[in-house]
Amino acid sequence: MSRPILFGPIEGIEVGHIFKDRKEMMLSSFHRSWAAGIDGNGTDDAAAIALSGSYEDDEDNGDEIIYTGVGGNDSNTGKQTKDQNWEKGNAGLRISMDRGLPVRVVRGSNHESRYSPTSGYQYAGLYSVVEAWEEVGKSGYKICRFRLEYSGQNPKRKTPEEIERSANGKPAQRKEGTILRIIRDTKMALEIKRLYDYKCQVCGDTIPTPGKGRYAEGAHIKPLGRPHNGDDSRDNLICLCPNHHVMFDKGSFSIADDFALMGEEAGGRLILHQEHKLNALNLQYHRKTHGYH
Amino acid sequence: MSRPILFGPIEGIEVGHIFKDRKEMMLSSFHRSWAAGIDGNGTDDAAAIALSGSYEDDEDNGDEIIYTGVGGNDSNTGKQTKDQNWEKGNAGLRISMDRGLPVRVVRGSNHESRYSPTSGYQYAGLYSVVEAWEEVGKSGYKICRFRLEYSGQNPKRKTPEEIERSANGKPAQRKEGTILRIIRDTKMALEIKRLYDYKCQVCGDTIPTPGKGRYAEGAHIKPLGRPHNGDDSRDNLICLCPNHHVMFDKGSFSIADDFALMGEEAGGRLILHQEHKLNALNLQYHRKTHGYH
Repeated sequence: MSRPILFGPIEGIEVGHIFKDRKEMMLSSFHRSWAAGIDGNGTDDAAAIALSGSYEDDEDNGDEIIYTGVGGNDSNTGKQTKDQNWEKGNAGLRISMDRGLPVRVVRGSNHESRYSPTSGYQYAGLYSVVEAWEEVGKSGYKICRFRLEYSGQNPKRKTPEEIERSANGKPAQRKEGTILRIIRDTKMALEIKRLYDYKCQVCGDTIPTPGKGRYAEGAHIKPLGRPHNGDDSRDNLICLCPNHHVMFDKGSFSIADDFALMGEEAGGRLILHQEHKLNALNLQYHRKTHGYH
Repeated sequence: MSRPILFGPIEGIEVGHIFKDRKEMMLSSFHRSWAAGIDGNGTDDAAAIALSGSYEDDEDNGDEIIYTGVGGNDSNTGKQTKDQNWEKGNAGLRISMDRGLPVRVVRGSNHESRYSPTSGYQYAGLYSVVEAWEEVGKSGYKICRFRLEYSGQNPKRKTPEEIERSANGKPAQRKEGTILRIIRDTKMALEIKRLYDYKCQVCGDTIPTPGKGRYAEGAHIKPLGRPHNGDDSRDNLICLCPNHHVMFDKGSFSIADDFALMGEEAGGRLILHQEHKLNALNLQYHRKTHGYH
């Protein structure tokens, strides 16, 4: 293709901009791909996605979107008729996630959500891909799934002080990129981290912090929040260093029922305290959805 | 003290609740400490903070608060007359950060911001402590500083779908804890990560991800955003693994002008590409504000 891919914001196109149809988006380089939901070639990251109502499993909660990858569906009915795989646009969105690159999101009028425009396509702004996994969709076929979080400049955050500082010639806006990862913590995670004395259950290391502190992260085996809805319970939590937390969430390694490590950590075994039981169904869930491929 | 410290949400007290005065907060165990801004004893994490207008360096941007620690100020004028140090409530807030525990925030009517109540004290909700550092305040004395981000349940995120699911007996709310870390990324960070082939400049390791991917994080030496306002430029960025990124941001190690590592990584030296120059002033800034203590 001769038209270059443009990433990030496009000058002159503000959040809320309405395109009459896909053709108008093409002309502006905004969303190059005519029919596919994801604008990306599988080698580079994805520049844009469209929520067009073609995928029955999409969930649109405004600032958070659970998005279904491309492929395997009947273009007329939107029903899945085959498994999806981690190629093309799906690979592209994973690259966007790993590199922390922003993805432009547009919503079409055929997409059913309270955020959809009544006609044409509306630019929803820049989003970050913060999670990728696979699952069996409503159809019974494997689908690639992504969680996107809004990461554009939020006008609601602009306070009078900022506007004033801008007038004074001082920095006015938060210069922020996309969100690469959000590490959340819970009370239960603290309990598990204490049980392991902040040592990683994979490598045994702890992260020293000033003031004799130690740092570790509680990793939920079956993730919290939509659509996984894992529990914040002892048997769904492990204590990991940030490096192994990244690897676990991204599926670089998984844990077998006998706690042998699989994938990049194959040959190792999860360190397990005698008072700590893990939920075998959740370990299986992680292997199936986020596991090593 | 006989009254136990209560952490997290307190039943019956919703965001927006107004307390007539500090005494009323005391009776509810909401903010135990009568005069100090931080409710915490320095051994445990801090349960609550009050924005009362006593510290001239506080910045309140609503969802984000740049908060000054306790100590060293004249209780009548709010002016600093001595250095602050990392003890008592300041130590407590750092524990809250490391453990990812929520802190209740109240705003007093004497605190000057667009979010302040006209009288009494208003509960602003649960916040996460996401950054701690020290700097020289307007007074010329050292102050301890914290960045807090709103992390409570945001009613704006509740969509009709969620309410419906709740009625169906399925999980309705995102079960989320506080935010422990937000890793942001920028285009420039990608350039630096590519320069180092996603290898950490401290340990030389890379994080493997599925699909032959590699993961690293771009760390800004002088942080982006208020109040540091570091640049998103090559000379202000280094490529780190998540573990060393945590350690650098928390001040477990610093970098000397000759790139020798200080603190927990003493004895080592930063790996530096011949095409990569670092800004010496920013290295100094990191040592002074986030450096090893």
